[in-house]
Amino acid sequence: MTNEPTPVSLRAKPGPDRLAVTGIGNALLDIIMRDHDQTYERLGLIRASMNLVDLDRAHEILDAMGPTIQMSGGSVANTIAGVAALGGTAGFIGKVADDEFGEVFTHDFESMGVEVDLALAEISEGATGRCHVFVGDDAQRTMATYLGAANQLQVHDVHERLIARSEITYIEGYLFDLPPAKEAIHRVVEIAHEHDSMVALSLSDSFCVERHRRDFLELVTNDVDVLLCNESELLALFQTSSLDEACEHVGELGVLTVVTLGPSGARIVTMSGGVHVPAAHVEHVVDQNGAGDLFASGFLYGLAIGADPVEAANLGSLCAGEVIKHLGARPESDLEAVAIDGGLL
Amino acid sequence: MTNEPTPVSLRAKPGPDRLAVTGIGNALLDIIMRDHDQTYERLGLIRASMNLVDLDRAHEILDAMGPTIQMSGGSVANTIAGVAALGGTAGFIGKVADDEFGEVFTHDFESMGVEVDLALAEISEGATGRCHVFVGDDAQRTMATYLGAANQLQVHDVHERLIARSEITYIEGYLFDLPPAKEAIHRVVEIAHEHDSMVALSLSDSFCVERHRRDFLELVTNDVDVLLCNESELLALFQTSSLDEACEHVGELGVLTVVTLGPSGARIVTMSGGVHVPAAHVEHVVDQNGAGDLFASGFLYGLAIGADPVEAANLGSLCAGEVIKHLGARPESDLEAVAIDGGLL
Repeated sequence: MTNEPTPVSLRAKPGPDRLAVTGIGNALLDIIMRDHDQTYERLGLIRASMNLVDLDRAHEILDAMGPTIQMSGGSVANTIAGVAALGGTAGFIGKVADDEFGEVFTHDFESMGVEVDLALAEISEGATGRCHVFVGDDAQRTMATYLGAANQLQVHDVHERLIARSEITYIEGYLFDLPPAKEAIHRVVEIAHEHDSMVALSLSDSFCVERHRRDFLELVTNDVDVLLCNESELLALFQTSSLDEACEHVGELGVLTVVTLGPSGARIVTMSGGVHVPAAHVEHVVDQNGAGDLFASGFLYGLAIGADPVEAANLGSLCAGEVIKHLGARPESDLEAVAIDGGLL
Repeated sequence: MTNEPTPVSLRAKPGPDRLAVTGIGNALLDIIMRDHDQTYERLGLIRASMNLVDLDRAHEILDAMGPTIQMSGGSVANTIAGVAALGGTAGFIGKVADDEFGEVFTHDFESMGVEVDLALAEISEGATGRCHVFVGDDAQRTMATYLGAANQLQVHDVHERLIARSEITYIEGYLFDLPPAKEAIHRVVEIAHEHDSMVALSLSDSFCVERHRRDFLELVTNDVDVLLCNESELLALFQTSSLDEACEHVGELGVLTVVTLGPSGARIVTMSGGVHVPAAHVEHVVDQNGAGDLFASGFLYGLAIGADPVEAANLGSLCAGEVIKHLGARPESDLEAVAIDGGLL
């Protein structure tokens, strides 16, 4: 693979005013509990998936939760935090409310040097979004998300400022769950194309793919350069039970695709076929939350600095391996130092 | 020690409507960062201590912090969470604001079955209090606390409801930093005496003792049955550099005292002398935050259910040993199960 021409135009390390990756996605605070007793089940939540809930249901869910830990979350937001932890320049576009959770979310990004373009919701548009995360004893996580202010992201909240300077623009698939976001996503793609920024898309969740298959297919077919997903998401997209068949589809579309396969690693799919990349070895998995998000950090940052897809995927595996060792979906370690130690940066 | 008469009247396990321990203290949310680069030093904070800050300074401190984790905190509040994790009935009296941090704080207690009597601050009285915690690579923690709503605890916020049913009423020394709290503390003591609830006091912090030595001495001399402190706090109280001398003083006052000594364990002081209790063995200390608070959980709960002070201190060591293994000052494990495994419950 490393001897073949890479299928996307890879640039050199971004210049001082350039950003490696800008993400657009849901700005959420994670409310995390260790769920020893399958609380999520009693609440009727679908295991290992992201369940969208309204405010009343969010209150009901919080009432049923044990003691919690709060930290910044959001799928693409986690990816961007990982890019920053790798030493990359990064940006984030999203929407928060003028409340304590919004303050924390913004602070955490700014403190990592991430350039943020966060729209501030009106009071009537709800509080900052939150994701209730149930972490089982098997490290599997079940999520219930109240989108709140994140739900109000509009086309006028999307500006050129960050996207125009980014090697890669990374779009969160969950955004399709926000009614007005379709227009916003198209504006993002338009700006990215204008400024020669690669468009990457996360399929986010298989149920999300089910909800918005047509929109996803249209975007993947017409606008996406890099597709990030796990197996069930890709199968849902092409309504097949065969991973090989699904990979053929994306191969034919000419979209560089990386399919994460949990402890089995990841498969990279290009027009010229598939390559398997192993997962990092992790002794004790505490919380799978953020594994896919942090894989994307390494993969996208790798591509942005000119690594080939296999090297980029190895960097992704390293990042995913770090985040599953502890509670929460944000990196705790200096990923750049870990990657340099591992000979990957 | 176990063959001697114990110096405080120990009751049987609390009945169904009784509470083992009710705490009164600062209701705070901890904002925690791993501080690899001595950020606290650049901010001029006193290492390994609690620094009181106003709102402007709190903003300045947050601005200088890296990515954070939020979780419920507050010294005596942590102790109460530990009592609940031990399977004990517990109550908490404090003050929060009607905001997201206040909601989280309240939720975490209620989800553990702690009975709360939380006064709600007016908007003009500030946001829910927060403690910025810097956890060094040596596991030592430096704190900067903005008291906010907690600062507004008044005598009329103290009710009989919880104290009257409690074996032990546990007062946070930090409360003396709140101008109107002196009156509130006296009301707490009055109710406790009326209802035959043992009065326990935490000296909280050596600088806090320096600030309020006269008030502390008065309370210890006249009203306190059980005193919880570390070495530097006890030395500050009696303005001496000799632990033996300080222990003699409390021994003469007839106050059952436990002095925590970090990895060296703890010393119990009664009128009949001192006894040393070893610390629990912990392979890798991650965060010392909450060690003293959780020691108090085991010690006070032990006393409340009729253990002698040495047994109670062993239970305290077990709890302290658990909380320093992970980030944050609240217990992550089912302490009751761990204590039963260890033959301490």
